[in-house]
Amino acid sequence: MRPVAIVGVGQTPFGELWEYSLRQLVTEAGMKAILDCKVNGEEIDALYVGAMSSGQFVDQELLAPMVLDAAGLADLHIPTTHVEGAGASGAMALRQAYLAVASGNLDVAIAGGVEKTTDVPDREVTRILGAASDQEWEAFLGATDPALHALITRAHMKRYGTTREQLAAVSVKNHRHGAKNPEAHFQREITTEDVMRSKMVADPIRVLDMAPIGDGGAACVLVPLERAESYTSQPIRILGSGQGSDYLSLAARKDLTTFAATRHAAGVAYRQAGLTAKDVQVAEVHDAFTINEILALEDLGFCEPGQGGPFVDAGDADIDGSVAVNPSGGLKSRGHPLGATGIAQAVELVRQLRGTAKGLQVKDARVGLACNTGGTGVISVVHLMGVPW
Amino acid sequence: MRPVAIVGVGQTPFGELWEYSLRQLVTEAGMKAILDCKVNGEEIDALYVGAMSSGQFVDQELLAPMVLDAAGLADLHIPTTHVEGAGASGAMALRQAYLAVASGNLDVAIAGGVEKTTDVPDREVTRILGAASDQEWEAFLGATDPALHALITRAHMKRYGTTREQLAAVSVKNHRHGAKNPEAHFQREITTEDVMRSKMVADPIRVLDMAPIGDGGAACVLVPLERAESYTSQPIRILGSGQGSDYLSLAARKDLTTFAATRHAAGVAYRQAGLTAKDVQVAEVHDAFTINEILALEDLGFCEPGQGGPFVDAGDADIDGSVAVNPSGGLKSRGHPLGATGIAQAVELVRQLRGTAKGLQVKDARVGLACNTGGTGVISVVHLMGVPW
Repeated sequence: MRPVAIVGVGQTPFGELWEYSLRQLVTEAGMKAILDCKVNGEEIDALYVGAMSSGQFVDQELLAPMVLDAAGLADLHIPTTHVEGAGASGAMALRQAYLAVASGNLDVAIAGGVEKTTDVPDREVTRILGAASDQEWEAFLGATDPALHALITRAHMKRYGTTREQLAAVSVKNHRHGAKNPEAHFQREITTEDVMRSKMVADPIRVLDMAPIGDGGAACVLVPLERAESYTSQPIRILGSGQGSDYLSLAARKDLTTFAATRHAAGVAYRQAGLTAKDVQVAEVHDAFTINEILALEDLGFCEPGQGGPFVDAGDADIDGSVAVNPSGGLKSRGHPLGATGIAQAVELVRQLRGTAKGLQVKDARVGLACNTGGTGVISVVHLMGVPW
Repeated sequence: MRPVAIVGVGQTPFGELWEYSLRQLVTEAGMKAILDCKVNGEEIDALYVGAMSSGQFVDQELLAPMVLDAAGLADLHIPTTHVEGAGASGAMALRQAYLAVASGNLDVAIAGGVEKTTDVPDREVTRILGAASDQEWEAFLGATDPALHALITRAHMKRYGTTREQLAAVSVKNHRHGAKNPEAHFQREITTEDVMRSKMVADPIRVLDMAPIGDGGAACVLVPLERAESYTSQPIRILGSGQGSDYLSLAARKDLTTFAATRHAAGVAYRQAGLTAKDVQVAEVHDAFTINEILALEDLGFCEPGQGGPFVDAGDADIDGSVAVNPSGGLKSRGHPLGATGIAQAVELVRQLRGTAKGLQVKDARVGLACNTGGTGVISVVHLMGVPW
């Protein structure tokens, strides 16, 4: 396995983008990534695309060759592969692209993530998101995605004394970060009181505990590290990549207060990189619900089990905290176009490590971590990245 | 890239399997593959699953971790990845598993393919299959999958003089083979007259030119070749793997009488293996429509362009022909449960090369080829396999 670098990144705005089709989202993101480095279209050896369900959202399967076609590169006839893991689809595509380049099988790979969710009615979005839970044991019985995360939240509150205010602190922090990000879905700050007074969705989860589902696309260009400098003066090296999985239904889990998939993925990525959480200055983690960021901080080793709430509440995850968590605004504020999210995390880390963040810039960041999750922690993908210079 | 072998294979019956759920299909196939060799569940390092759309057919995304969970192996927390490429999803999963083992990233990978299509009404199946064409430029305008393949058929007839009888010869041959296969969807012979008198679907395509969509699952176990003998006395080596792509809509193609994606995939696979079509004794190719087998024979180099019809009509693709094509019965007779098809082709080749075919056995086969296609040749995947002993 040879070293691999990300040399180009690109992203569309995230939000309810009525003027964008699926094709336009992926094309704009891909073109921005290609223009961000000196790669020619003809050099591309393979394309990996992450999306939860272009079939359900816009009636289009064969997503990956469609993307190549939309980008005007169908004449290359190269391998194009769509990977699915609900909300983790983006990082899974990044990981497959990374493994393809690392293996020596090919040299230049594009990893893209996309979702166009606003072409179907809201009730359909709820139904489709239910397909990321266990249909037979959860969704058919009426448990929605927020209801399942409410069970996880309650378990954490009961076991560790995590408070409603600590949950709100995640949203408040991420909106404070995202307010400065011109590509974010929501670009405004909110207060603890706003969260506490927002509409109840599934007790104790309120609407401002939840990330907005929307439209967006993001893309990265990956090449062998030894060739990276011919494409950019600021390549970012992928130091470690791990992916884990768990029981599909919550009922089968032994413990609701930790995501075993994240622990597995992080263990693999840290071992590969020879690093620990202490070495990370900036992290983009999956805060689809506020409880998810708290679990991620614990499962990734940024704090002890049960200490995620106090950690955020004390400002340790702020832009100038012990680790800057979700400087982009995270899923909560930057937005969560499902398949695009995992790639957007990588885009943000590359910019932070280059010192070219579009929103808040973390100072002197040299190592970044991304954690992207699907369903109730059923799949989790962790990447570590760093400056090679 | 190190040599890789398939050491275990398993498959469910194919057909309208009202008594099987999606979970049962994948579990049975996976368990049969594991029991076919001496691999323990705990040794498995990764799982790749190919399916066109478990989201659209049974409202279930996060398909790959669901499969691991259904198999009772969720406690492993290993990487599980669902890949989608419409009808080519199965072979894409096999290729990702192959690349993962070949790269040295991991040792034991399972590649599975599955589709449960009979839980939705027939009209829904037609709509979902339309998602494998170009929604914006084909399906929304009323072009169905058979209509698009009718255009391809007409173009081939016009350019090369391919006849209706030659198309029928593909179905007749594949039903003759499949009639002996106890796992086939249709286990009966048909005549040229049956095909010619069958209901017209999209002129010149008749219902007996089309493979049946159904339910099924199939799985393979892959390990490094150097470790293969500890799992089985009859490992089959993967000699080459290629994947290609093409424009999504037919309107954008320069030529409807050849699939550029297949030519690209075959070129890569043959070069890797150091082989040509002349070295292949048995092939499983994608005959979703009769024209597809004819195109495959030409694009894979078994005959000259335009000669696919006469090749089949003369018996050259028979079980005792110059190359035995679709001894399993192919998609036409064995059946076409979308994501399962590409893996079922590999299962058949492994059995043929071992000399343990469940249906007709090709004599002295030492090299086999599988060609699995998605949509109108938008993705094509070619694998070459051989006996290492």
